[in-house]
Amino acid sequence: MYNQSGLKRIINTALVNLSYNTESEKLIDPVKYVLSMGGKRLRPVLALMAYNLFSDTIDDAVMPVTGLEIFHNFTLVHDDIMDKATVRRGFPTVHNKWNFNQAILSGDVMTFITNECFLQSPSHLLQKVFRVFNKAAIEVCIGQQLDMDFEKAVVVSHEEYLRMIELKTAVLIAASVKIGAMFGSADEKEAEALYEYGRNLGLAFQIQDDILDTYGDIKVFGKTSGGDIIAGKKTMLYVKASEIASPEQKKKLHDIYSSETADHSAKIKSVTEIYDQLNIKNISENLSNDYLRTALYSLEKVSVQQERKAELILMTGSLEGRDH
Amino acid sequence: MYNQSGLKRIINTALVNLSYNTESEKLIDPVKYVLSMGGKRLRPVLALMAYNLFSDTIDDAVMPVTGLEIFHNFTLVHDDIMDKATVRRGFPTVHNKWNFNQAILSGDVMTFITNECFLQSPSHLLQKVFRVFNKAAIEVCIGQQLDMDFEKAVVVSHEEYLRMIELKTAVLIAASVKIGAMFGSADEKEAEALYEYGRNLGLAFQIQDDILDTYGDIKVFGKTSGGDIIAGKKTMLYVKASEIASPEQKKKLHDIYSSETADHSAKIKSVTEIYDQLNIKNISENLSNDYLRTALYSLEKVSVQQERKAELILMTGSLEGRDH
Repeated sequence: MYNQSGLKRIINTALVNLSYNTESEKLIDPVKYVLSMGGKRLRPVLALMAYNLFSDTIDDAVMPVTGLEIFHNFTLVHDDIMDKATVRRGFPTVHNKWNFNQAILSGDVMTFITNECFLQSPSHLLQKVFRVFNKAAIEVCIGQQLDMDFEKAVVVSHEEYLRMIELKTAVLIAASVKIGAMFGSADEKEAEALYEYGRNLGLAFQIQDDILDTYGDIKVFGKTSGGDIIAGKKTMLYVKASEIASPEQKKKLHDIYSSETADHSAKIKSVTEIYDQLNIKNISENLSNDYLRTALYSLEKVSVQQERKAELILMTGSLEGRDH
Repeated sequence: MYNQSGLKRIINTALVNLSYNTESEKLIDPVKYVLSMGGKRLRPVLALMAYNLFSDTIDDAVMPVTGLEIFHNFTLVHDDIMDKATVRRGFPTVHNKWNFNQAILSGDVMTFITNECFLQSPSHLLQKVFRVFNKAAIEVCIGQQLDMDFEKAVVVSHEEYLRMIELKTAVLIAASVKIGAMFGSADEKEAEALYEYGRNLGLAFQIQDDILDTYGDIKVFGKTSGGDIIAGKKTMLYVKASEIASPEQKKKLHDIYSSETADHSAKIKSVTEIYDQLNIKNISENLSNDYLRTALYSLEKVSVQQERKAELILMTGSLEGRDH
């Protein structure tokens, strides 16, 4: 059994040792740059944990699931272009450090490097696991589309918002866990239970991310606190606040949120005040924790010895109230 | 045996009947838009022709090779963003009709729709054919990178230019023909000969494209004549002219070519005059025809009855002096 940091090391080693077609270093430099920024490597780590539920050896999945991390980073590169984000994990974004065209093209090549990774799956598994991955990849694109659509909308319902983060964030995490299970020859029912585990974990994770963007510590989180508020991004905090606010609070929130003031800290302060009046941080944390509980419930359905589940349970727990 | 127009119809039908995840029509509308613009469907048609060399039934390759067309159109959508092109095949480009972000994201999803198509390959062929495709996909990105690099360079050698168009255009055509051959259970040597056929055909095709951009008829070609000259794009015409021009002509050519004048027709006229003095149209056509001859020579190495090669030979011939 590997623990989280052991698995993260395995993925980081695989990322460093990736063999590229290096005929153009200009194309690959931004790829290496984003992949060296660090991060939790959550998706491949979860995939290997799921594999590890069923099998002690996990070597043949390392390269394929490394593709999940490359895909995820591809989405960050292109999302950052679309969001005009200048900083990611404390570093300049690719289009900021290079330029827009470079970020488009280097992002594009990452989708094919992802495929290269999956192509290293054992032949009998390739079609099966790649189908699960690719379905999620298309759903991630739909999620990003909904996210862009919501930017222009004043009102986004709780359900609409949940579906968006499900597509944009949760399905890839779900697919990652399911792919790991498939490497471990899990049966259909167990693979589905683990998909559900990942989906709920992903929803919790995104809601936590929303909370951290407003309430997190920049030194830990690497992003400027309040970035979502400044950009007027729809988040669970905003959606929940819109839902439970009084008509006056709601009007005030919507007016401030859609305003394009140069005084960023004033905007953040005004929005946060409304959130605080409505106890939004707590409500959102409870919601996130509900999803974590549902995730654990799905994990219970997987019939392997309890001690084999320890790492997945620890991972789930570490997301609870994650602002450290 | 199917002829070219029969195969094109088969691909167009497959494209129309593609099943999409339509949860967001905003994401898919631009995809349908570019795929409905028409075009020769050269890559899947060549793939099916290669399959047809060895087999009368080609049905199981139709969906997989349709992926080649979707991939090709993905590259057009993203290249048009990078080139700031406003018109493609006589229609507004995606980023022009929608916006940059939409063109990035709808282009992205096309790469995964491409994967969906390949995933419909028979299990025993998937890994094999998808490897050939994906290697080409990465090379196409490198080719686009070199193309962008060359925009800023004044001098690009004949060899550098050839390598760029080989990567950007020829390898995908080569891979298409090879994939068709693999569906037809061609042996390694035949598959390689067909790859070489496609590679040379692709080089000829791109040189013809360069000639047509300057000397073609807009009504037939769908693009404004002289677009490459206005954009200062390095083409075989420019590279050849730079190579054989006198020092005076060369200086004049480079000065005009890099100038950003508002008088487009004057720029086109001045450059074309130098090309004409140097007989560049003829030289380039001869070069293109040399590649077509080499392509036919590779085709001879494939040991199937001559009459089975008729469609590929016709296709090769139709590219000769193609300005109709």
